[in-house]
Amino acid sequence: MLTYLLEDESTPLYRQIYENIKNDIVKGNLTPNSKLPSKRSFARNHSISTITIQNAYDQLISEGYVYSIPKKGYYVSDIGNPGKVKRSINIESHISLDIKLPKAPPLYEIDLSNNTICPDNFPFSTWAKLMRSTMTDNKNGLMTLAPTGGIYELRKGIAEHLKSFRGMLVDPDQVIIGAGTEYLYGLLIQLLGHGQSYCLENPGYKKIADIYRENGVIYTFANVDCDGIVIDDLKKSGADLVHISPNHHFPTGITMPASRRYQVLAWANEAPARYIIEDDYDSEFRSSGRPIPTLFSIDGMEKVIYMNTFSKSLSPTIRISYMILPVHLANLFYEKLSFYSCTVSNFEQYTLSAFIEGGYFEKYINRMRMHYQRQRKKVIEIIESSSLKGLFRIIENDSGLHFLIGLTTNLSDLEISKRLSQRGIGLQALSEYYFDSVSQGATDHRGRQSCHQNFICEFSTELYDKREMRYFILNYSNIDLDKLPKACEIIHECINDK
Amino acid sequence: MLTYLLEDESTPLYRQIYENIKNDIVKGNLTPNSKLPSKRSFARNHSISTITIQNAYDQLISEGYVYSIPKKGYYVSDIGNPGKVKRSINIESHISLDIKLPKAPPLYEIDLSNNTICPDNFPFSTWAKLMRSTMTDNKNGLMTLAPTGGIYELRKGIAEHLKSFRGMLVDPDQVIIGAGTEYLYGLLIQLLGHGQSYCLENPGYKKIADIYRENGVIYTFANVDCDGIVIDDLKKSGADLVHISPNHHFPTGITMPASRRYQVLAWANEAPARYIIEDDYDSEFRSSGRPIPTLFSIDGMEKVIYMNTFSKSLSPTIRISYMILPVHLANLFYEKLSFYSCTVSNFEQYTLSAFIEGGYFEKYINRMRMHYQRQRKKVIEIIESSSLKGLFRIIENDSGLHFLIGLTTNLSDLEISKRLSQRGIGLQALSEYYFDSVSQGATDHRGRQSCHQNFICEFSTELYDKREMRYFILNYSNIDLDKLPKACEIIHECINDK
Repeated sequence: MLTYLLEDESTPLYRQIYENIKNDIVKGNLTPNSKLPSKRSFARNHSISTITIQNAYDQLISEGYVYSIPKKGYYVSDIGNPGKVKRSINIESHISLDIKLPKAPPLYEIDLSNNTICPDNFPFSTWAKLMRSTMTDNKNGLMTLAPTGGIYELRKGIAEHLKSFRGMLVDPDQVIIGAGTEYLYGLLIQLLGHGQSYCLENPGYKKIADIYRENGVIYTFANVDCDGIVIDDLKKSGADLVHISPNHHFPTGITMPASRRYQVLAWANEAPARYIIEDDYDSEFRSSGRPIPTLFSIDGMEKVIYMNTFSKSLSPTIRISYMILPVHLANLFYEKLSFYSCTVSNFEQYTLSAFIEGGYFEKYINRMRMHYQRQRKKVIEIIESSSLKGLFRIIENDSGLHFLIGLTTNLSDLEISKRLSQRGIGLQALSEYYFDSVSQGATDHRGRQSCHQNFICEFSTELYDKREMRYFILNYSNIDLDKLPKACEIIHECINDK
Repeated sequence: MLTYLLEDESTPLYRQIYENIKNDIVKGNLTPNSKLPSKRSFARNHSISTITIQNAYDQLISEGYVYSIPKKGYYVSDIGNPGKVKRSINIESHISLDIKLPKAPPLYEIDLSNNTICPDNFPFSTWAKLMRSTMTDNKNGLMTLAPTGGIYELRKGIAEHLKSFRGMLVDPDQVIIGAGTEYLYGLLIQLLGHGQSYCLENPGYKKIADIYRENGVIYTFANVDCDGIVIDDLKKSGADLVHISPNHHFPTGITMPASRRYQVLAWANEAPARYIIEDDYDSEFRSSGRPIPTLFSIDGMEKVIYMNTFSKSLSPTIRISYMILPVHLANLFYEKLSFYSCTVSNFEQYTLSAFIEGGYFEKYINRMRMHYQRQRKKVIEIIESSSLKGLFRIIENDSGLHFLIGLTTNLSDLEISKRLSQRGIGLQALSEYYFDSVSQGATDHRGRQSCHQNFICEFSTELYDKREMRYFILNYSNIDLDKLPKACEIIHECINDK
């Protein structure tokens, strides 16, 4: 007869019995197909109700540890492979949760590398109002699954925004909404197939290469000169797709002129499987002149896939981006990938849609454009009136939320970054955005320093002749202006330091 | 001298000039490196201000169509490859936006295949309240980028929920939050590498196969018998990973007993690269008995990746799912994939975190469990009191939001579905969830009908002997009870119809 000590007052009796029997079955103390005591005798033996035993047996049966034969009784199931099971159970308590989290980014006293949005600038009260009215007025819409590309209202709003803001003619059904540009890159790989190869700009946004690598596709690099991606490098890469930001290249800030744009389009038209991914990530913040037409607008051959995001124009913590597919790719998308659910919550899709439709988005962008323009002007004034005067050069084209700053120094840019970091200042060296392994695919191999110089030489011929200049990326979207004079002083000390 | 008609009163003059010159450059009417008229003569010629011409030229320069030589004048840029460009420009107006959208699901008068949530049941007022207080109290949190796995508060809330609800011991850093289970499957493929092969349950959730296919990984199928996935089939598949729903298999509703669970674990332990993906998609709605321990809980060898979603427990339109990685995979994840941003908006992560922490989630689940239990009971009562009495059999185990219904008929299940559809009733045949190409990988080939019968025979031995039964999936989460008697009548007519 099985006998268990049932002394744990915090656990129901049936549960203690269940645990004890299960434990004995798992450990092999009760052999397969052996008979268990009858409910009545088991109950009597432990001086408890038969109902309690019944409950324990029922649970064991429902989990498959025990089976019953009508009018005969209860038997131990053969749970198979007891040796392995025993080992795997016994080891359980020895596993320590030794999780190594990724290194947190350093916290700087003055962070000139921070590209987030200042919380004061987000339109919280309007957003809260629209979210609330969406929840009051559109319960059915919120509970109905959105199509793969996103809710129609938002896609229409985006199409209208692109028309008035970028002069782009887009059918809402060409718009595919997703939870961040990173997600959409992955979706594009699925759309175009894993066999295609991609060419990226060097220097460029490192995350793009990470995404292509982890998705198992081939990618190569082409250098950037002062007009953008070098066509010869692109041709040599042998790639099917090129990934570029012609309107405001990251990190150099280059705007690709029309001639180079048509060269890229010509390249794409040389073979049927070639496409251009045009990433227009911060086009809303061009502050002077009319924005330059997108590649998508001047493409007549369905060769350009346009990408944009609300990360810069609203906040990176609201994960909403979109891509505009040429018609034949939109059709392929709906044919191949419409089984996917849209990755953005209906709640935020409807709220953003109301935000655009109500004219709030346009007002917000205009306000932020002015804000960033003033912010950039003040930042430059502070640097000019600091001890850095005569020792720096700023390369910017009235666009985006960052600019390049060149500093006169005999030290390397990485050494300066390191010294600044030790003194509590975050400032990223331009060379950090160069990919080392330029020859990943087919293009000719050049080391980081040489292509870096290649770009900088062309970009700053007048200034480069006599002095050593090192370039850095200065993000001003969330900079503390009061602390900037102090930062300039420290930078001055670091670049002069031997 | 260039002369243009400037008669479009709705467009600024500078803009008309800009458009005309640009057009002539693109079309090749103005040859590369030819000199443009001086601002002064151009202005005099058109009787307009030189400032207007200056603005037009500035725009053309900024876009690269024109360059200037100081003290000499303005020249046409060589935009290269004019033949191709001309063609691509000219064709533009001929493209029609002939987008073929995916076929919309049919709208039924009475839909027994609808698995959405009834809008009346979503806790809108609590959700709105928590969303609002998040926006008031946590502006900084909302604007700060979340770690790849999601905000810590939500991961902690999920870990605590799993502990009290599923008896699972999980470190919050093992929890990875993503915008839907579909997205997380893709992330897992990136984590484990594209070279791994996957084994899916047959029958099963078709979307899983779609995801693996579009991600370019190899997948095979293993049949399901009345204890779940057939181990011999799994072994023969040669797969590295198996994807199962042991706690409530879709669509059959099978709960895998302990013996089969240990067999699957034993299989996984036979080779180092083998893992089990345990999809626990609707475990919250088990209405009687204690839930069966998850595979994750009884795994001592870090072989189980646990997946769950708030799609069933809250709403599929809020895209929040999560996976629990074994420690060594969590470490691999942070090492390889922490460059990714979390795909769920901070706004919803914080709101859900407050929803769990405030005890609302637990209350909501309890309320909904009761609701679905009552709903299921009523549905069964209505069917029993209809003319279908004696002609049907329901297979359910007090779980989830759907059950199987067998109907006595001489017609095929697909024929019945078709007839019902024509009469405005949506009801999906079980055989729809069988994968035809069972031999995609290594497993032995059997046609749909044979493995279908295989499962059904075992499942319903007592009933299967004399009569022909066809099985269907009945979703009752959002069923209109008032219309159900009518639906039963129509079903009765359809199954009897010759």
